[in-house]
Amino acid sequence: MRKFLLSIFMLVSSITSWSQSTYLTTSQQQLDLEKKFDGYPHPKNIDQFIKEMSAHPHHVGSPGNKKVSDFIYNKFKSWGYDVNVETFYVLFPTPKTRLLEMTEPSKYKAIINEPALKEDATSGQADEQLPPYNCWSADGDVTAELVFVNYGVPEDYNELQRMGIDVKGKIVIAKYGQSWRGIKPKVAQEHGAIGCIIYSDPHEDGYFQGDVYPTGAFKNEYGVQRGSVMDMPVYPGDPLTPGIASTKDAKRLDRKDAGNLLKIPVLPISYHDAQPLLRALEGPVAPPSWRGSLPFTYHVGPGKTKVHLKLEFNWDIKPLNNIIAKLPGSEFPDEWVIRGNHHDAWVNGASDPLSGQAALLEEARSMSELLKTGWKPKRTIVFCAWDGEEPALLGSTEWVEYHADELQQKAVIYINTDDNGKGFLDVGGSHALQPLINEIGKTVIDPETNINIVDRRRSKDIIDAGNNIKLKQDLLNKKTIDIDALGSGSDFSPFLQHIGIPSINLGFGGENAGGEYHSIYDSYDDYRRFKDPNFVYGTTLVKTAGRVTLRMADADILPFEFKAFSKTVDRYLEELVSSLNQMRENTSVENRLIREGFYGYADDPTKKLLPPSLKDEVPYLNFADLQNALTDLDNTTNQLSDILKKSNITAGKLVDINKLLYRAEQKLLSDAGLPKRPWYKHCIYAPGFYTGYGVKTFPGIREAIEQRNWKEAQEQIEIDATIIKKFNDHLATIINHI
Amino acid sequence: MRKFLLSIFMLVSSITSWSQSTYLTTSQQQLDLEKKFDGYPHPKNIDQFIKEMSAHPHHVGSPGNKKVSDFIYNKFKSWGYDVNVETFYVLFPTPKTRLLEMTEPSKYKAIINEPALKEDATSGQADEQLPPYNCWSADGDVTAELVFVNYGVPEDYNELQRMGIDVKGKIVIAKYGQSWRGIKPKVAQEHGAIGCIIYSDPHEDGYFQGDVYPTGAFKNEYGVQRGSVMDMPVYPGDPLTPGIASTKDAKRLDRKDAGNLLKIPVLPISYHDAQPLLRALEGPVAPPSWRGSLPFTYHVGPGKTKVHLKLEFNWDIKPLNNIIAKLPGSEFPDEWVIRGNHHDAWVNGASDPLSGQAALLEEARSMSELLKTGWKPKRTIVFCAWDGEEPALLGSTEWVEYHADELQQKAVIYINTDDNGKGFLDVGGSHALQPLINEIGKTVIDPETNINIVDRRRSKDIIDAGNNIKLKQDLLNKKTIDIDALGSGSDFSPFLQHIGIPSINLGFGGENAGGEYHSIYDSYDDYRRFKDPNFVYGTTLVKTAGRVTLRMADADILPFEFKAFSKTVDRYLEELVSSLNQMRENTSVENRLIREGFYGYADDPTKKLLPPSLKDEVPYLNFADLQNALTDLDNTTNQLSDILKKSNITAGKLVDINKLLYRAEQKLLSDAGLPKRPWYKHCIYAPGFYTGYGVKTFPGIREAIEQRNWKEAQEQIEIDATIIKKFNDHLATIINHI
Repeated sequence: MRKFLLSIFMLVSSITSWSQSTYLTTSQQQLDLEKKFDGYPHPKNIDQFIKEMSAHPHHVGSPGNKKVSDFIYNKFKSWGYDVNVETFYVLFPTPKTRLLEMTEPSKYKAIINEPALKEDATSGQADEQLPPYNCWSADGDVTAELVFVNYGVPEDYNELQRMGIDVKGKIVIAKYGQSWRGIKPKVAQEHGAIGCIIYSDPHEDGYFQGDVYPTGAFKNEYGVQRGSVMDMPVYPGDPLTPGIASTKDAKRLDRKDAGNLLKIPVLPISYHDAQPLLRALEGPVAPPSWRGSLPFTYHVGPGKTKVHLKLEFNWDIKPLNNIIAKLPGSEFPDEWVIRGNHHDAWVNGASDPLSGQAALLEEARSMSELLKTGWKPKRTIVFCAWDGEEPALLGSTEWVEYHADELQQKAVIYINTDDNGKGFLDVGGSHALQPLINEIGKTVIDPETNINIVDRRRSKDIIDAGNNIKLKQDLLNKKTIDIDALGSGSDFSPFLQHIGIPSINLGFGGENAGGEYHSIYDSYDDYRRFKDPNFVYGTTLVKTAGRVTLRMADADILPFEFKAFSKTVDRYLEELVSSLNQMRENTSVENRLIREGFYGYADDPTKKLLPPSLKDEVPYLNFADLQNALTDLDNTTNQLSDILKKSNITAGKLVDINKLLYRAEQKLLSDAGLPKRPWYKHCIYAPGFYTGYGVKTFPGIREAIEQRNWKEAQEQIEIDATIIKKFNDHLATIINHI
Repeated sequence: MRKFLLSIFMLVSSITSWSQSTYLTTSQQQLDLEKKFDGYPHPKNIDQFIKEMSAHPHHVGSPGNKKVSDFIYNKFKSWGYDVNVETFYVLFPTPKTRLLEMTEPSKYKAIINEPALKEDATSGQADEQLPPYNCWSADGDVTAELVFVNYGVPEDYNELQRMGIDVKGKIVIAKYGQSWRGIKPKVAQEHGAIGCIIYSDPHEDGYFQGDVYPTGAFKNEYGVQRGSVMDMPVYPGDPLTPGIASTKDAKRLDRKDAGNLLKIPVLPISYHDAQPLLRALEGPVAPPSWRGSLPFTYHVGPGKTKVHLKLEFNWDIKPLNNIIAKLPGSEFPDEWVIRGNHHDAWVNGASDPLSGQAALLEEARSMSELLKTGWKPKRTIVFCAWDGEEPALLGSTEWVEYHADELQQKAVIYINTDDNGKGFLDVGGSHALQPLINEIGKTVIDPETNINIVDRRRSKDIIDAGNNIKLKQDLLNKKTIDIDALGSGSDFSPFLQHIGIPSINLGFGGENAGGEYHSIYDSYDDYRRFKDPNFVYGTTLVKTAGRVTLRMADADILPFEFKAFSKTVDRYLEELVSSLNQMRENTSVENRLIREGFYGYADDPTKKLLPPSLKDEVPYLNFADLQNALTDLDNTTNQLSDILKKSNITAGKLVDINKLLYRAEQKLLSDAGLPKRPWYKHCIYAPGFYTGYGVKTFPGIREAIEQRNWKEAQEQIEIDATIIKKFNDHLATIINHI
């Protein structure tokens, strides 16, 4: 055995002893390499990269964007990478007219601009900034009564219905929070509203949270959160080219036919601008959970308050600059480890995205240093600096759509980062990567506490469990952390959910709270005061993401552990079944309460609340096929794991086995995609149709249940059972192959 | 049997067939009587009574107080009652100097006065009003740094300790809420503070809750809650005469020796006055749960903010006017059904206490009407209009202390009310009265919904259970409501907790929220707009409390059902044991987290939080004696209930049996009283030492556990076991007697 090992070693000299079962066990050589790698990243570089790239606003199509792209391009070039700029041409609306005024009961014209501050050096670059707006709002000129709709999510409209308030023909004002912003106008539009205002309440995003900028980090009264309101849960990317790349000559939809664009105008405003509007509202006092931190009583409206909202946009096609830098693999050049972060920002974007982009660059630089020591990655490493993430994951989506076939052949993993700051490791991704992430995390040291980043994150989770002693004990007994399922909100989405590339999203945070997000105050001055003043979480991210890149690039047997996936997915299904049972019980009790008049008896009759609506009773669904498929999967993944650990796999077989391992995730795709949104093909992970970024696991089944579409739910169970069987068969193939 | 019945009936002609088992079953005759009674109360009278009595401020010792006393006296006289004014002489401090100013970092002098409003006719009676103050504050003249202590309860000081903030030598500012107000300065003083300010945050008591007065019912920026800060959990009543009546020549303590008076000055202020003080605070940002609804970031202090608090009081002895009106019993004149409500107010007191006082008067008037129809109560009915409830339950406590022996002989029940308004029945009291209250409640109709008041209350509880479906189902299945255990906050306390008279406290509310409590705006104008505009809950209270009075006055077998008591107390003990177990587990896990440094790892190091302090581990306690005593009690009460229902009890025995029934509660008293507060003698019910009004059941045991005094806890278990045995023996005597 030992001898055999040696002979293999001599045969393929630069390769570590791969016929020894290196599955999920890291060789000393690799650990030494990573230790060496740790020596290169330097906080000063993170600082410098963020400072230089955030010197000017650099949204899609802007001169600043070109400057940042060039900066990144030149850096990669200087470090010896094979760099390309891959350009796509996308629709990108920018504001031409932005008018919001209250016309009754008194006059108020909203400012909708953030003032320059002497404490913030780049805040005065008004000529280069995109002013506050919601990208993909419709053009519109509407005047109507105003209704406050809380967060503007579906449950809020149930409450409005109980109050007898209809938003049809009205303009709604919703506060940021709870859902992703794009959900608010979408739901408003579904309910017949003709306009939507989104404001930052100081409770979620202002003085309630802490001292406001520039004294502290939190949103001041004029701060506004820009952001996309495209219906990305339907599809992201250029709205005119769903599913295909927006090359210069791509066949484009007419804008009116794009299935993810709003028909109503939407505008984000500050709490300074929201205050006179909300204060003027009449109608019922808002329910307690709707009330924010402005110093008056929140009313729902409608009443005398009328607002006039006029918005017009330049609907231009703009070029996107994706910078793609490659380090060719020495052994498996056609296996790609892809590492990405976007570079475009709404304004200066020191935190979002440059803190992550700086880490990516420093990671690339550090690898170029490693190269000088003689190391070469076995697999090709592809660094991607995406453009156009902010409006709609444009750069990554178009690139993925363009290279889909190649990626499904070659992409071993996609490793994403975005903004980054002080605090705790936050990681989401394909659950088969859970053991890898824990193993890596145990070797990276948290710069504030000098314990490893997994233990620090565990500590936080344990303390945050508060009075839930059972949870505390469970977390204490478990020495690892879970990785979250991925919804949306950054560039991993097309990789994972559209074409089934195993993906991971990494970042640090939790001690970097503030109100700068998507405002002009997301600046270098803000970052170095409140986000990561010593830039040490920047280098910690380099070490963490860098390790994932290095291990995936150099692993003999790729560290996908489908047992972890299988266990986690079992739990998701259990939760789903139990929530369906809960829903059945709730519906039955609630319907009884409604029918027997309990709401009428319990409510104050002077408040004239209607009872909630009766709901159809919840049937039992047949989960058996899916449960059986998952049971088979448990067996297969256990077996696979054992075999991979115990068997001596010959070099000849390894290539095939690795290919089967990294392409397994693709078996979780359905051809048809999710109901009403075929772009999303992954049967386990998707952003929620009514949550936006928030993930829905088993999305096809879960959302059909949530929307009480029992027939569709049963169909989706069968579809997912078939997919899990296919996935299981694929893993069984690996076993047979060994 | 039938014949025997008849002969009895003829013997005592005016008595209903009492040898038939009338226990817990109401005769048609009684139901008819109550139906007749329902015909008398009229909303117009409630309206008129409230209006006349609230025409002027009428606090202890004021001309207005004399006027109200006379009004009540004359009313009772006019209805044919035997009326007495029983006067006591009590210490009652009123303000001479009230100064609060911020001296650093800027100057602000607090207003501490509520403006007159044209919408509120009595709000301008400044000459007759007591200005905002906390009664029983010490005299003091202090200047010191200010610290914000949230609600000022013990847990808040644990948080302060974690922040490294000591209040020693400082002035604290606490917000109203969570605990009874008197707890705040008491705990501040225990921690070494030299002064205490209490303010109304708009979150709990202001614009966050709803439109402010006079637009709506909630507290405007100048409103201040007056109120007592005597340490009533030690003893209520005149602080100079604990346990004895404050007659003219009673032996009085020196004020400095009174065990329930503060050593530090305390002042209540409005949120208008609190705002500049809180806004100026520096130091750490307050934890999220501490933050209120003022429009800035809440800091804890200390820092540059210094305040000067100067308070002086007139420490005068004032006369109390208790009005006692009797309707002699026709059969058992020495068995008293006592019905009380206080008449003194902090200012005009339309709601507190006059809404209840008006109902009491209307009840008395209605009974005088019943008398005209030939009805006579079998037992003596005693109506009591108490003086001096607001400062310290003065009138009732001194009266109870004066008449203690007589009351322990004669008092069958004490029925209390206080403020009253729209909404839902709220009832607390001796648990043996639970079946009675439910039976009565099922025959009183809610004026807003036309269902009975028990079902309306149940509906509210069911809907309020929200997402707790298990609780909803339990409540749906149970057709009765529970009555709460009584803490303090009104005049039942001396009756129940000092001398063991079975007590009940009744009122309606839940749709009468507002900010008028203990302010000049608790006026007739406020009441008729926001509390009970049609005065129909006033008459509903008359019908409810009147029924209790009538049934207790006329019952053959008094409707005490000790099975209900026994079951409820079993539940209290289960909760107590389970909370001790929970505490043991929590302590063990928390100590581990502290020792192993988890807090340090989880917290942001820049915030410099200290870990919580280690706590001594929680031992197992021996509950066996108490559990066995309660098991015996279960058997005895079941047996007693069966026997009372089934047996034919002769008239001769009935008197003795009833006496044993109504005096049973006295067996629940301990001679020594509770640790550190011997005035409180009831082993089941007491106000919390650190909650104030909030009840603690099994207070001796529970508070020893909460204070981690394990030795005392074990002692109290044994004491309570002995008491329960004594109580059990007493009930067994009844069985033997039948």
